[in-house]
Amino acid sequence: MTKEKVILAYSGGLDTSCILKWLLEKNYEVICYMANIGQEEDFDAAHQKAMKIGASKVVIDDLRESFVNDYVWPAIRSGLIYENRYLLGTSLARPCISVGLMKCAQANGAQYISHGATGKGNDQVRFELSCYYICPKIKVIAPWRMDEFCKRFQGRQDLLKYAAENGIPVSVTPKAPWSMDANLMHISYESGILENPNTEAPEDLFMMTKNPLTCTLKPMRIEIEFCKGVPVQLKTADKVIKDNLQIFLYLNKLGGDFGIGRIDIVENRFIGLKSRGVYETPAGFILHEAHTDLEVFCMDKEMYRVKQSLRDRLSDYVYNGFWFSPEGNYVRKCIELAEENITGNVKLLLHPGAVTVLGRSSAYSTYNEDLVSMDKHADFSPEDASGFINIQAIRLKEFRRLNINQ
Amino acid sequence: MTKEKVILAYSGGLDTSCILKWLLEKNYEVICYMANIGQEEDFDAAHQKAMKIGASKVVIDDLRESFVNDYVWPAIRSGLIYENRYLLGTSLARPCISVGLMKCAQANGAQYISHGATGKGNDQVRFELSCYYICPKIKVIAPWRMDEFCKRFQGRQDLLKYAAENGIPVSVTPKAPWSMDANLMHISYESGILENPNTEAPEDLFMMTKNPLTCTLKPMRIEIEFCKGVPVQLKTADKVIKDNLQIFLYLNKLGGDFGIGRIDIVENRFIGLKSRGVYETPAGFILHEAHTDLEVFCMDKEMYRVKQSLRDRLSDYVYNGFWFSPEGNYVRKCIELAEENITGNVKLLLHPGAVTVLGRSSAYSTYNEDLVSMDKHADFSPEDASGFINIQAIRLKEFRRLNINQ
Amino acid sequence: MTKEKVILAYSGGLDTSCILKWLLEKNYEVICYMANIGQEEDFDAAHQKAMKIGASKVVIDDLRESFVNDYVWPAIRSGLIYENRYLLGTSLARPCISVGLMKCAQANGAQYISHGATGKGNDQVRFELSCYYICPKIKVIAPWRMDEFCKRFQGRQDLLKYAAENGIPVSVTPKAPWSMDANLMHISYESGILENPNTEAPEDLFMMTKNPLTCTLKPMRIEIEFCKGVPVQLKTADKVIKDNLQIFLYLNKLGGDFGIGRIDIVENRFIGLKSRGVYETPAGFILHEAHTDLEVFCMDKEMYRVKQSLRDRLSDYVYNGFWFSPEGNYVRKCIELAEENITGNVKLLLHPGAVTVLGRSSAYSTYNEDLVSMDKHADFSPEDASGFINIQAIRLKEFRRLNINQ
Amino acid sequence: MTKEKVILAYSGGLDTSCILKWLLEKNYEVICYMANIGQEEDFDAAHQKAMKIGASKVVIDDLRESFVNDYVWPAIRSGLIYENRYLLGTSLARPCISVGLMKCAQANGAQYISHGATGKGNDQVRFELSCYYICPKIKVIAPWRMDEFCKRFQGRQDLLKYAAENGIPVSVTPKAPWSMDANLMHISYESGILENPNTEAPEDLFMMTKNPLTCTLKPMRIEIEFCKGVPVQLKTADKVIKDNLQIFLYLNKLGGDFGIGRIDIVENRFIGLKSRGVYETPAGFILHEAHTDLEVFCMDKEMYRVKQSLRDRLSDYVYNGFWFSPEGNYVRKCIELAEENITGNVKLLLHPGAVTVLGRSSAYSTYNEDLVSMDKHADFSPEDASGFINIQAIRLKEFRRLNINQ
Repeated sequence: MTKEKVILAYSGGLDTSCILKWLLEKNYEVICYMANIGQEEDFDAAHQKAMKIGASKVVIDDLRESFVNDYVWPAIRSGLIYENRYLLGTSLARPCISVGLMKCAQANGAQYISHGATGKGNDQVRFELSCYYICPKIKVIAPWRMDEFCKRFQGRQDLLKYAAENGIPVSVTPKAPWSMDANLMHISYESGILENPNTEAPEDLFMMTKNPLTCTLKPMRIEIEFCKGVPVQLKTADKVIKDNLQIFLYLNKLGGDFGIGRIDIVENRFIGLKSRGVYETPAGFILHEAHTDLEVFCMDKEMYRVKQSLRDRLSDYVYNGFWFSPEGNYVRKCIELAEENITGNVKLLLHPGAVTVLGRSSAYSTYNEDLVSMDKHADFSPEDASGFINIQAIRLKEFRRLNINQ
Repeated sequence: MTKEKVILAYSGGLDTSCILKWLLEKNYEVICYMANIGQEEDFDAAHQKAMKIGASKVVIDDLRESFVNDYVWPAIRSGLIYENRYLLGTSLARPCISVGLMKCAQANGAQYISHGATGKGNDQVRFELSCYYICPKIKVIAPWRMDEFCKRFQGRQDLLKYAAENGIPVSVTPKAPWSMDANLMHISYESGILENPNTEAPEDLFMMTKNPLTCTLKPMRIEIEFCKGVPVQLKTADKVIKDNLQIFLYLNKLGGDFGIGRIDIVENRFIGLKSRGVYETPAGFILHEAHTDLEVFCMDKEMYRVKQSLRDRLSDYVYNGFWFSPEGNYVRKCIELAEENITGNVKLLLHPGAVTVLGRSSAYSTYNEDLVSMDKHADFSPEDASGFINIQAIRLKEFRRLNINQ
Repeated sequence: MTKEKVILAYSGGLDTSCILKWLLEKNYEVICYMANIGQEEDFDAAHQKAMKIGASKVVIDDLRESFVNDYVWPAIRSGLIYENRYLLGTSLARPCISVGLMKCAQANGAQYISHGATGKGNDQVRFELSCYYICPKIKVIAPWRMDEFCKRFQGRQDLLKYAAENGIPVSVTPKAPWSMDANLMHISYESGILENPNTEAPEDLFMMTKNPLTCTLKPMRIEIEFCKGVPVQLKTADKVIKDNLQIFLYLNKLGGDFGIGRIDIVENRFIGLKSRGVYETPAGFILHEAHTDLEVFCMDKEMYRVKQSLRDRLSDYVYNGFWFSPEGNYVRKCIELAEENITGNVKLLLHPGAVTVLGRSSAYSTYNEDLVSMDKHADFSPEDASGFINIQAIRLKEFRRLNINQ
Repeated sequence: MTKEKVILAYSGGLDTSCILKWLLEKNYEVICYMANIGQEEDFDAAHQKAMKIGASKVVIDDLRESFVNDYVWPAIRSGLIYENRYLLGTSLARPCISVGLMKCAQANGAQYISHGATGKGNDQVRFELSCYYICPKIKVIAPWRMDEFCKRFQGRQDLLKYAAENGIPVSVTPKAPWSMDANLMHISYESGILENPNTEAPEDLFMMTKNPLTCTLKPMRIEIEFCKGVPVQLKTADKVIKDNLQIFLYLNKLGGDFGIGRIDIVENRFIGLKSRGVYETPAGFILHEAHTDLEVFCMDKEMYRVKQSLRDRLSDYVYNGFWFSPEGNYVRKCIELAEENITGNVKLLLHPGAVTVLGRSSAYSTYNEDLVSMDKHADFSPEDASGFINIQAIRLKEFRRLNINQ
C-alpha cells in the first residue's frame, strides 16, 4: 500500500525537523518544502538535514521575485498598515509561501500539508486559509494543535531529547531568548523575554538594521519614482535602479545602515490575544512614507477617503489571513483602480533612525500652484468663500438655537 | 449716533493693522482682541501699536491653559491626525480663540467680528463656524473676501503704502519668503517659496525645533503616564512634571532640542484645494506616539476599530472647522467613553529626529502574558484553533468552488 | 460523591428532552431552565415532562419585561437591522435568556450549562459568547457538536426511538416541515422545505400574522410617541397605552391582524454559511419604521451618519452573538448618546401588509418651516448658495481639467 | 455686436417662462432646452410658448433611454438609497439632463446656462456641479440666487403680473398647493402645505400611483431576471419584456396600479436644511427590493459589507450632486466590480401597497443547500464550531475578567 504524502513547510529548525520525523513515524511520505523569500538561510544544509532525517524529497523554491511583485508591491500601493503601525511583513509572506506549497502539493500529488505554526498565532490561520482557498480539498496536519503531539512535546527539552534519540542534528548556537521570523521585507521578533511588554528589546536583537543611535553616516538623499502606486525607480547620488527586487534590496541595505524602520508594538492577533512584537522593515518603511506622500499629493481628496477606508479593511484582511478571499481580491482591485494616477517622484532624506520627505512632483496631481497661491487670484473669487461658510453654518446655527432654547 | 462695534482678531502684523485702520475708516469702533495661545509675540508692542492706530481697546487674553486642557488634551486623547500626518495644531487653536473672541464680543456688546484670514484658506472657515455656533447672530467682516478691500489692496505693496500713509509702524525685519502661524502646539509654514511642492524647506525656516541632522545630544529616556487617555505625568531622569501646561511646554523643549516632530506634506484643504505645508509639532508628536502605543495596548481590539473610525471622522471635522458642531461634540463624547481604560505608562527614547517606544505597562490592559506565552498553555486549548480556522474557511472554500466550476 | 450539575436550556421538545435524558445517563444532575420570552408554550406540561424524565428541578423564568426593556427597546432605539432586512428577533432573545440561565447556574452552584442548538447555526454562538462573558469560567456541553452524541442520534428517527425506549412523551401533532423559533418579538422559520431558497413559504406557516392578501380590515391610524429614541406611548382611536410590554403586545396584535412585518430572505450566518429564513415581526417592524422616521426628523444630519455607521456595526455584533462584549456595550452607549433628542410623535396608518408614515412632530427637531419654505426668505441669503456651489466645484473642475489635458 | 448665448433649462412653467423673458431683457440670446426624461408634458405647447416669448430656438431632447440605461440602472445595481428611504429619482435625473444641456451648449457655442432652481434646494447644486465637471469653463446664471431678480419677483404674484405684462401665457388650471418634479422614475412633491411635516399628504396629490387602500386588484406574481446587478428581463403571467426602458415603464404601470412605492419623509438637504418630501417611485421601489434580495443571495458576505459602505457613500454623493466627480466615478466602478456575480431570478408578489419576495435562484450564489441543511452533514464537522466559539470567547473572557477584578 502506498503511503499518503504530506508536504511539510520546512524551516530546517528544531521544531519542523522533529515534526518531519514524527510524520515519518506516523507512516506518511514527507516532502519538505522550503520557500526562499529572502531570509538568511543555509538552504543546502537544511536540504541535507531533511534528507538525512528521512524526507523523500526537498523542494527549495525561490519566491523572491514573486514575493516582491505580487505581495510587497501591492501592499505598498495599497498603503497597508495594521493598527496604524505594523507593515505586515509576515502576513504578506504567508499567502506567497502558500501558493508555492500548494503548487508543490499538486505537482507531487499530495493530499496533505503540514506546518510547525503554533496554535496561538496568526500564521497557522494565514497558511491554512490561503491553502484552503487555493485548493478547498487539501487537508492540514498541524501538530502543534494536536493533543497527542502537544502531550509528547511539552517543551523545548522534549524536542531536544527526541532529536538526540533520532539523530536529528541540533544547532550548537544557543537559542536566542526570543523567536524570530525573517523574509526580505522584515524580521519580526516575539516571545521569550519580549513577552513582558515593558521589557526593552535588547540592541543585539536587531539583524536587518544597525543601531541608529550609533550611526555616523552622513544624511543621504534619494529619489523614488512611482507609477500607478508602485515604485519603478530608485535614484541615489550614484545609482539608478529599476528592477523591483533590486530596488527593494538596495533600500533594505540603505535603510538598514541608517537604522530605519524599527518598531516595538503590542498588537491584536486575529484570535483575540494581544501580543508584543518588535519589527524591523527598512525598505518597507521608506516606501510606505514615500507612497503616502505621493498619494495625498496626487489623489483626489474624496477618493482618498474612500481608498483609506478600503485600505483599513484590507490591512485587517491581510493580517488575519484573508489575502486570498472574495473580499481580499475585491478590495485589492478597487484600490488598484484608485491608484491609477499615483505617478510621480518623491525626494527623501535618509538619516539615522528616520526618513524625511523633502519634496514631490507629478504630472498627475490636481495641485495647482497658481490657484492656491496667496499672491495670485487665478480663477478664485474670494467672496465665494463667504457663501460657502454661510451655507455650512446654517445647520450649526439651527442646532445651536434649538439647544439654547431648551 | 453710536458707532457699531467690531471685535478684530488682531495679530499686530501688517495685514490686521491695515484692516484695523480700514475698519475705522468705515466708521466702526474697533476693539482689538489678541489671544495668547503660546506663540512668541511682543503683546505689549502690539497693544501700543493697535491703540496708536485707533483701537478703542485692546484685549490680551491668556488662553494657554484652556488651549492645552480643552483642545490639545482632547486631541491627544482622540489620537487626532489629518490625512495620516497633520496633528492639527492650527485647527485646534481656532475654536479656542473663537471662544475668547466671542466672550469679548459679548462682554463689549459687539455685533461684529472681523479677521485677517484669506479667502482661500481653512482658518476663515474655522473661525467663522466656531463663532456662528457659539453665537448664531454674530456678523462677520472678512475684508480679504470683500471685493472693495481686495481691489484696494492687491498686493503687499498696497498694504505697505497704506501703512506708510496712515502712520502704521512696519517691522524693519524683512518678511520671510513664506508665512507662518504659531501657537504652543506647533508652527506651520506655507506660501511663498513653499508653494512649489518640490522646493525643499530651508533649514532656517524652523523655529521650534533644532536641526536633527546636527543634533549631538545623547539619547534621553522619558516616561509618560496617561490617565483615561490624557497625559498626567512626565518623568525624566531628573524631573517629574504633573501640570498639563508644564508637561506640554517641557516636552516641546525636549522635542525641540532633538529636532522631533517635523513634517512636510501636501494636504487637502476644506475648500477643495491641495496645499503644501511644513509643520513642527515637537510635544504633540511625542504624545501622539505614546498615546497610540498605550491605546492599542489597553483598548479592546474591536472597540479600537470603532474608535479609529470615529477618530478619522473627528479629524476631518476639526480640520474643517467643525470642532463645535453636533457631530464634533458627539464624536468627542463617544471617544471619551472609549478612552476610559487608557491608563498606564509608556517608556520612550528621544533621539535626534525621532522618538522610539521602549515599553509600556498598565493595570487596565487585557494583555495576558501567561495566555499569550509560547511556553505556557494557561487556559488555551490549541485544538480550538483548528475549529476556528475550519469555520473561517467554509466561506472561502465555497466561493472558490463556485468560481472553479464556472 | 456528588454529581456535577448542569443547567439545561430546555424547550420541552424532542431534542432537549432527549438531551436531558442523555445528560442523566452521563451521570450529571440536570436542572431544566425555561425562559418565558413571550413564546406560545405550555410551560406546565413542559415542567411535568422534564420532571418525569428525571430533571432535579425545573425553573420557569418570566423574562418578558426584561426582554422588552433591556433588549427590544435598545434595538428599536438603535435601529438595529441585519443586512438591511432582518430585525434580529432571535438574536436579541439569546443574550436575555443567557442572563437568566447564568443566574440560574449561579443560584444552583452549577458549573455546566447545556443547550440543544446545532453546530451550523448562530444560536450556539450567541448563547455561549453571552454566557462566557457573564461568567468566564462556565463550561458548556453542546451535544449537537459532540461526535459521540451525533453518531448516536443521526436523525430524527434515532431521537424518536430513544424517546420511546426511555418513556419520553412525544407530541402527537406531526412536525411541520420546517423549524421555528418564537418569542414576543418574532417567529422565525427555517430548514426543511425552506432550505430551497426558491420554494415559496406556504401561507399556513405564519403564526403571528394573518394573511395580508385576505385581510379585510379598514386602515387604522395610530400614533406612537418616542422619548430619547424609545416608545413611551401608543395611541389609537380608542386606547392610550404607556407600559412598554403592553405597547409591544398590542402593536403585535394590530400588526398581526394587518399581516404586517413578514420577510423572506437569505442571510449570511456568522459561521459563513448562507441560510434562508422567513420571519414575522409585526410590532418590531412598525416601531422600526416609526423610529426611522422620527430619527431623521430630529437628529442632526452629520450625527445621523455617524450613528448609522455605529448601527451597522452593532447590528452585526448582535447578530453574531456579541451583545455582551466590549464593542457591543460601547457602541450601545454611543448610540444612546445620539438618541437624546429623538423625542416626538409619529402618525402611522396600518393597512393590509404595510404601514405608512403620515406625519411627525417634535420639539427637538432642527426642522425649520420658515427657513426651508419656498415662500419665505427668513435668514436665508440665496446668493450664499452660489459661493457654496462654486467652492464645491473647484475640486471637480481641477480634476476634470487634469483629465482633459491628459 | 453679437449677443451672448444662454441655454436655459426650460420647463414651460411660469418661473422659467419669466426667466426666459428676463434673460431676453438682459440682452442675451436664449435657447430653450427641454429634456424628455419621461415626465408627462406637452412638449409642443411648451415649444410654441418659448418661441412666442422670444427664444431663438427650442431643443427638445429625448433622454429616456439614456436616463434608464446610464443613471437608473446603475442606481439599481448600486442599491442607491438616501438616508435609508429615498431612491434618488430627482438626483439621478439632474446629471442626465446636465449632459444634454452641455451638449446643447457646445453645439450652439453658448458660454452660459441658466435654470430656474431655487437657492434653498438641492437641484441647483446638482445641475451646476454636473455642468462644471463636464465643462469647467461654463458660466451659470441662476436668477433665483440673484439679488436683482429676487427683489423684482418677490412672490408668485410678481411673476403672474410680469407674465401678464409680457404676454406670457399662464395655465388656467389653478396651481396645486405644493410643487412637484416628475420623471419616469418618480414624482416628488414638496413645499406649500407639505412644509408642515405633520400635515398628511392628501390622496389627490399622487399621480403615478393609485391609492393602495382602495385597490381591488388581485395579487400578481412577477419574476425579474438580473445580470451583473441590472434587470434584463421582466416576466409576468402573460408577458416577457427584455428592453430596459420597457421593463421600467411596465413596472411603473404595475407598481402604480398596486399603489406601490410611496414614501413620506423628512430628509437632510445638502445645504444643511431639513425638508419634507413625498415621493412615489413604483418601478424603482420594486427593483430595489428585488435587487437587494438577489444581492445578499449571490454576493459574498464580506464583499457585501464593503459594497454597502460604498453604496452609502455613493448615495450621498448622488444626492449632493456629485454623480460626476472623482469619487462618484470611482465608487461606481468599484460597485460595478462587486456586482459581477449578481445574476439570477427573483420571484415577487405585487399586492396593494406592497411587494413581497417569494423566492430567488441563481447559478452564482454560494448558497449551498446541502451544506446548510439541518438534516445533512456534508463537509461540515460540528465540533469545529466549538473551537470557533472558544477562540471568539478568549477576548470577551479576558475583558470580563479584567473588569470583574477592578
